[in-house]
Parts: sequence; structure tokens; C-alpha cells
Amino acid sequence: MTGIDFTVFKGSPNGKIIESKTHKETIKPDEVLLKITHAGLCGTDQHHKTADMVLGHEGVGIVQQVGSQVTAFKAGDRAGWGFLHDSCGHCDECLNANEMFCPERAIYANSNTDQGAFASHAVWKAAFLFHIPDAITSSDAAPLMCAGATVFNAMYSYGVRPTDRVAIIGVGGLGHIAIQFAAKMGCEVVVFSGSESKRSEARSLGASEFYATRGASTLEIGKPIKHLFVTTSHNPDWNLFFRVLAPNATIYPMTVSEGDLAMPHIPIVSKGLTIQGSFCASRGVHVKMLRFAAVNGIKPITQEFPLTAEGIEEAMAKLSKGEVRYRAVLVAGR
Amino acid sequence: MTGIDFTVFKGSPNGKIIESKTHKETIKPDEVLLKITHAGLCGTDQHHKTADMVLGHEGVGIVQQVGSQVTAFKAGDRAGWGFLHDSCGHCDECLNANEMFCPERAIYANSNTDQGAFASHAVWKAAFLFHIPDAITSSDAAPLMCAGATVFNAMYSYGVRPTDRVAIIGVGGLGHIAIQFAAKMGCEVVVFSGSESKRSEARSLGASEFYATRGASTLEIGKPIKHLFVTTSHNPDWNLFFRVLAPNATIYPMTVSEGDLAMPHIPIVSKGLTIQGSFCASRGVHVKMLRFAAVNGIKPITQEFPLTAEGIEEAMAKLSKGEVRYRAVLVAGR
Repeated sequence: MTGIDFTVFKGSPNGKIIESKTHKETIKPDEVLLKITHAGLCGTDQHHKTADMVLGHEGVGIVQQVGSQVTAFKAGDRAGWGFLHDSCGHCDECLNANEMFCPERAIYANSNTDQGAFASHAVWKAAFLFHIPDAITSSDAAPLMCAGATVFNAMYSYGVRPTDRVAIIGVGGLGHIAIQFAAKMGCEVVVFSGSESKRSEARSLGASEFYATRGASTLEIGKPIKHLFVTTSHNPDWNLFFRVLAPNATIYPMTVSEGDLAMPHIPIVSKGLTIQGSFCASRGVHVKMLRFAAVNGIKPITQEFPLTAEGIEEAMAKLSKGEVRYRAVLVAGR
Repeated sequence: MTGIDFTVFKGSPNGKIIESKTHKETIKPDEVLLKITHAGLCGTDQHHKTADMVLGHEGVGIVQQVGSQVTAFKAGDRAGWGFLHDSCGHCDECLNANEMFCPERAIYANSNTDQGAFASHAVWKAAFLFHIPDAITSSDAAPLMCAGATVFNAMYSYGVRPTDRVAIIGVGGLGHIAIQFAAKMGCEVVVFSGSESKRSEARSLGASEFYATRGASTLEIGKPIKHLFVTTSHNPDWNLFFRVLAPNATIYPMTVSEGDLAMPHIPIVSKGLTIQGSFCASRGVHVKMLRFAAVNGIKPITQEFPLTAEGIEEAMAKLSKGEVRYRAVLVAGR
């Protein structure tokens, strides 16, 4: 390889998506060159559309070339990635399978704003990549790389167990995958959505109960909730939901926004509630997530758009209006 | 027994402490009559001083008489109580050693506003009472009944382990006991206090590090904190403390106030933090707490006041001004 130029799509100050070029002189011995075929659109990409950086962090593609030390991948393999965990391998976090919190990881990830999933190609360390199980198409795999890993990690790493009564607020990019994971983990799945419009889809994804909450002043749901996953971009009326939580229940705020997370103080203490932040998955948990999805037939419901500046803008506009059912995937031309 | 009148101290609309009488016609077969000798003053008693109810929930006394079915206590025993857990014994919570969340418990506790620890006597179910270990004086035992049980429960029930780096914000009624428990559990104990004034006392209680935080814009503390116990009645500057938390750290808000608990949203998610509410201890944990305190010589630092209307008012006034070092105990005349 004597240098490669590839196309990338970046944010810009006025929010317009700009097509640009990135040049890589060579791939290093521990790196892999991918041709990107699919990229999921995540709500956090919207936060970066005014930044001079390549967007997209739910990438799937086909390996074109591997560095001399790479043994885990070969040309022609399908591979995907989510957030990059360039961990040092010897700090406390790395030694506890928690490498996404390795202090060195941030340094690498922040220095790579010239590559991303909204692009024709990418060159990444082989250690950042995951094999895509045969049972999962590349289009379905893309949303699993961030949305899927995020909800699976929260359920897997913080104590959701079969038989638990789990509630999911919001049937969207995260929520519609969360319903499937929780149902296949053997949980009772209670879904809260604004209107009735997604009732039958939620049931077919695995919800055992569905409640429309818009305008509700109380929720009548029978047995209280042990785990509450909040997948909406706006916070719900906490007082409404706190009343249906079991003692020692856990609340998982799955999306982020600027400012404070504010919840009623007294019931947190008097009910012994847990508020559990959860970031993306460690590598080990990410691999378990992909295998679990493959074995259990968990599939995102996707809407495809062309992986072009226009396609990205169209998908982002639909996402802003809440019109994507349920995850946009950008697909490269052949 | 043909009926007993005893003296009780209640709140009143203007906040004055009123001496009153409670009459019990008889003690039931599962009940115990206590002569109260010591009662701790808790911050939450201040919330009730305008209510027509008997105050005090950190009681210690001497058993005077027991009902016909009572085998666990006999006349002359020392006994104490904290919050009352009148659990049903067969709901999900009771069957999981979580009886303080039994739905029936609240019914009993709420119907007993005519008794409390600020009184000459009390009649309680034997099941509400705890034996006081010989190594603990009654004056020292009183603050353990709520303050001690609260901090011990949070540490014991939610995963604080020996070698963990534990921080305590505030050296007061809860904080000065929390320092001792954490140190004796084998933790590294980091104490944050407004000024330097409590440095040497904190160190003698078991703190390995002490930082005065008033006016600080950053905290330089070396290794980050895994468990943060907030024992102050006002919330700290969360941005200041979030920066010294380890990934996956847990924050325990130990006191309650009306309104919202508001914390910076993004770091909760991106650092995978846990906010852990913790209520008073189950019976099993309360017994472990008393034994742990006895074996390890854990003693509240107390200031004694007479168990009279004037004594209660004096202690409450000092508590309001932050002048109690570190827990007020009301002592009955002999």
C-alpha cells in the first residue's frame, strides 16, 4: 500500500454535512483497512454535526487489507466497530475488563477525528474491530455497534436477571432493541410509550405489557418495576414513574443531555433506589452482545438511506422529527 | 399491669416542644414495656417539630415488663430501637431480608405517633427491639440506632469492600460514624470537610486523608474515589467532586431534603456512575452493625442534654446552628 485517499463526511459550523478526503500513508502492522458498507445513525451524531470531525460510530464493512501483525482478521471478513477502546492493557480498568475507562483510551479516540463510520473506508487497529456473526446482516449489525451495545451493557453488567420485571420508556432506536434483549433474557417486559401507535410493534418485539403515558396522571400497571430503562431523549415525569418502582429498583438513564439530571430526592433515599449510569460495553461484553443477538434472532428494525452527504442529511432530518422507525442505516453504493 | 401513663415530648404548630401524656391500657402478649434512658437527636426530628407527634427514633432503655409470648427479652435487659419495621413476614420484601420495605410496615409505624424515644416509657413489639451489646454504653448506643444503622447499611449492603477508596463528605452526626465504620471495614478513608477545624478529630476517627473544601475550585487527592458518602444536609458542588470519582464509582446521598436531587447528567452516563439511595437497615443488618461496633470499639462522640422539653429544645437549637459535636443524646433523669 502506498497511500490511500478515502471519502469522509464531516460536520461543519452551519450543520451542513460536508464531503471531504482523508489520507492514510500506510497501514501499521496492527491495523486493518476496511471498506465501509453500512453505518448506523445515532442521536449523538446530531450533537456533532456542527463539528469539524468525521461523523458516525456504528460502522460495518469488509476488510480490504491487514497489517503484518494482524491475525484475527483477513481480507474479505466482515467487521464492525462502535466506540473505540484503545486501552493500555495494564491499568486498573484494563485489568478489570473495564477497558472503556482506560485513561489512555481517550487520548487515542480524541486524536482520530479524521476518520469515522460515515466514510468510504477506515483504518483502525484490529483490536477495535469485532467479527459480525453470520446470522446478522451488515445492515442489522450497524445499529448493534452502539445502540445495541449500550442497552445490552446496561442490562448485562448491572444485574438484570431472568424473571425480573423490566420497564422500557420509549420505543425508538435504543428502546426497540432494549425490548428484544430484555425479553430474550427472560424478563417480564413492560413498555411505556407516549401514544398507542407503537403498541402492536412493541408486543411483537417481546413486550408483555404496553402503556400509553401521554396525559396520564397515574400509571396502573400491577406489580411494580425492578429495572427502568429510560431511552427517550427527554426525561420523563419522574414522579409518575417513581410511584410504580419497587423498593430497591434501578433506573438507567440511557441517553445524555447537557445540564443536570434532576430526580425527586426523598424517594431515592426512602425507597433505596439506584440510579445507574452505563456507558458503552467493554470488548468482552460487546462480543457477548453480538453472539446473544445472533443466537436469539435479535434484529434492529432499520430504515436505509444512501451513505452520501444528502443521505446523511435526510436521515438526520427524519431522526430530529422522530420519524425514523427505528434506526437509520446509511448504505454505501456498490 | 392495669394501665400506665407515661410522659412524652411532642412537636407543636409553633415548633415548641410540648410535654404530654400517653396512656397504654395494657401490654399485649408480643409487646415489651421499656423505661427510656437515652434518646439520640436526629436531623429528621427537626422536620417533625411542628407536628403533633411524639419525637425521637433513636431510643435506648431498660425492659420493665414483657408480654406473655415474649421470650427474647426479660425485665432488666437493655434494649434499643430505630425505625420500626412491623413487617408481615410473607411478602416478597420480607422474604428477601428487606422487611423495611414491607408494604404493611408503614401502616403500623404511621399509627404510632403517640409514642417515640423522647418519652419516659414506650411499649413496642418485642420484634422491634435490639439487644445492646455489653461493650456499648446506652448513651453511645442511641445514635447507632438510626445514624449508625443508616451509614452501616449503605456501606454493608451496596458493595463497599476492604481496600476500596471511600470518601465521606461532612464530619457530623452521620459522617463521624461513617469514618469509623469505613476505616474498620478496611477501606482507605478520605474525608472532605468545609474547614480545617475537624482535621485532627477526623484523623483520630480513622481518616487516612483530610481535605478542607471551602472555596476550592479543584480537589487534588491523588487516586480517585470509588464510594462517595454525602452526609451533609446541603448538597455539595457536584462538579467539584465528580472530577475525583473513579469510573463506575458510587455516590450515596445519605440525607434527604424536599425537591429534586440534581447532578450533572453527562458524567453519570459517561463515567458509568451509580447513585445509590439507602434507607435504614433491615433487622439482620442492624444486628450486624451493633456487633461490628461492639467488636471494633466504634463509638459515637456525643453531647448529652436532659430528656426534658427544655433539654430537647436546647439540643435542637445547637443542632440547627451546627454546634453539636457530633451527636446529641437526651438522657433521662434517674
